[in-house]
Amino acid sequence: MAAITVKNRQILLKDYVTGSFVESDMTFHDGTCLLQLQEGTNDILVKNLYISPDPFLRGRMQKRTNSYVDSFVPGSVITGFGVSQVVMSNNPNFSKGDFVTGYTGWEDFSVIKSSGFLRIIPAIGFPLTYFLGVLGMPGLTAYAGFHEVCSPKEGDQVFVSAASGAVGQLVGQFAKLLGCYVVGSAGSNEKVELLKNTLGFDEAFNYREEIDLDATLKKYFPKGIDIYFENVGGEMLEAVLNNINVFARIAVCGMISRYDSAEPYSIKNLHLLIPMRAKMQGLIATDFSHLYPEVTERVGLWLKEKKIVYIEDLIEGLENAPRAMLDVLRGKNVGKKIVKLSDPYTSLEAL
Amino acid sequence: MAAITVKNRQILLKDYVTGSFVESDMTFHDGTCLLQLQEGTNDILVKNLYISPDPFLRGRMQKRTNSYVDSFVPGSVITGFGVSQVVMSNNPNFSKGDFVTGYTGWEDFSVIKSSGFLRIIPAIGFPLTYFLGVLGMPGLTAYAGFHEVCSPKEGDQVFVSAASGAVGQLVGQFAKLLGCYVVGSAGSNEKVELLKNTLGFDEAFNYREEIDLDATLKKYFPKGIDIYFENVGGEMLEAVLNNINVFARIAVCGMISRYDSAEPYSIKNLHLLIPMRAKMQGLIATDFSHLYPEVTERVGLWLKEKKIVYIEDLIEGLENAPRAMLDVLRGKNVGKKIVKLSDPYTSLEAL
Repeated sequence: MAAITVKNRQILLKDYVTGSFVESDMTFHDGTCLLQLQEGTNDILVKNLYISPDPFLRGRMQKRTNSYVDSFVPGSVITGFGVSQVVMSNNPNFSKGDFVTGYTGWEDFSVIKSSGFLRIIPAIGFPLTYFLGVLGMPGLTAYAGFHEVCSPKEGDQVFVSAASGAVGQLVGQFAKLLGCYVVGSAGSNEKVELLKNTLGFDEAFNYREEIDLDATLKKYFPKGIDIYFENVGGEMLEAVLNNINVFARIAVCGMISRYDSAEPYSIKNLHLLIPMRAKMQGLIATDFSHLYPEVTERVGLWLKEKKIVYIEDLIEGLENAPRAMLDVLRGKNVGKKIVKLSDPYTSLEAL
Repeated sequence: MAAITVKNRQILLKDYVTGSFVESDMTFHDGTCLLQLQEGTNDILVKNLYISPDPFLRGRMQKRTNSYVDSFVPGSVITGFGVSQVVMSNNPNFSKGDFVTGYTGWEDFSVIKSSGFLRIIPAIGFPLTYFLGVLGMPGLTAYAGFHEVCSPKEGDQVFVSAASGAVGQLVGQFAKLLGCYVVGSAGSNEKVELLKNTLGFDEAFNYREEIDLDATLKKYFPKGIDIYFENVGGEMLEAVLNNINVFARIAVCGMISRYDSAEPYSIKNLHLLIPMRAKMQGLIATDFSHLYPEVTERVGLWLKEKKIVYIEDLIEGLENAPRAMLDVLRGKNVGKKIVKLSDPYTSLEAL
């Protein structure tokens, strides 16, 4: 059978981003793709259904070293976490029709060369998009970052920044399930309401409306902070350091305030780690990949029992992906941002 | 018997120190002391023999909160670690004539109210001053900081700043005993020679002669840094963060570069903790007091077997204590700075 040629729209990085990211740093390319795999390879050809504009991708848009993921190559398609449907597979672990999640391209069809990060999505009754969030990398980040890095215990005073984001909303709920006192910060009053009324945080505040973050934290944490789940960096981290308790744990998950900033904020009071004997530890989800089954099972159960809720912010159309990325970097998303590319094939017989 | 009155020279804090410490921030007071204990107390009266001008005391000279030790009170005697001889004791755990080490005053005689930090110095053949250094708080700091906080293993690439100081010289030697590659930084060529030729460091450099600390560390650590024992802070910490390996451990023991600085250096690249999944942890020795017996035994054995050497920098006379403090803050000491006040009583019969 002759190989079929299909339309393949792509989002490319125009050039390395140096200042703040703008939509025009990405370009839309109307290309085509031959539905065919090279013989003798282990390749998998997938149709991409959803992509995930995660904050860490911003780092890949600049030329840099010293990171856990390489920079993108200007002119090439953006890659990141996505949910896809297997169209063709030379890899015995994946079959035509499987729904998979892992690293893929911001395009309609991708050939996935290495299947290291690719997982088959189990058919356990959750929306496919959950595997880009609560049951995916952000869920693993929240779960492992909180339980493995923060050594939490009942009664701990927990602060979460970017608390309505994909990771923050889960950290706060995991902390509540354990019996902690939990306060979140976010960048709009709408998000603050969400944190307090829907996500079950004890308190929440809009950091953009606070003139003295140090005083704000003193108000919300009269007993001091035992655990800080760090997603933003900058002035918030400084204010937290001024309010930590002895033996505080700070999980450094992200510092979104600096990802898109030409002149990053410098931390002046790091010496407070000494008198407080506090720990700061950086984390990335892939170090905890072995916990995916535990997250799927435990967090999946919490979801089914409605002990946690999960909020998504879905936008349709690949052409809107650059805008979705910008929204995430500017904090305009409410919940986990997802871009829907297309519906799955209902039948793969013809291919 | 009527109480005896003796001369009691004292070093007082004149006022809170705001800029850089200068000798005249302390004043010399020629007082007297009644050799008598108040009845019904648990007090101990000691004759002070040696005092220890430790860097952490600088913090106590300014008005502050958020620390593990209170600020000094202007006009009051400076207190810190010392070696003393018990002259009178209401405390059943301490007897006349005992040599003790713990928190005492910068004065000839002190009444010690709480014996929480006071230990009897075991008669195991070491100079009394060792209990202010290698077998005292700095030794415990080095031992616990390295072994408990840094999770070291053979072959680790270890960097120690302020490496010829009381703590640094020990950390480097402990690391060598474990089979690590060890580089130290110090502030003079004399110290660098000491590190390489006497203390057994693999390499050492004079940070004052380096124009690009980042490049310097890249040169000395072609395999990157696994463990950093942080004593200085500031630009050195930034350069280290640029050179750490994945899963690096940074024990934050001190940040002497900022203790005496009106405008502390800010850290711009703390986000590197994330891709490197690195840990920074503050430590103070008192959290590890339970390890004193282990330090005395294990480090004592290493000293006797000449597996480690220990370098002191002794100065005589209480009146020189402010100068000794200044020397330590400026890095002019070579080895552990000690101020000798007087010899012990050879007989306490008359008292």
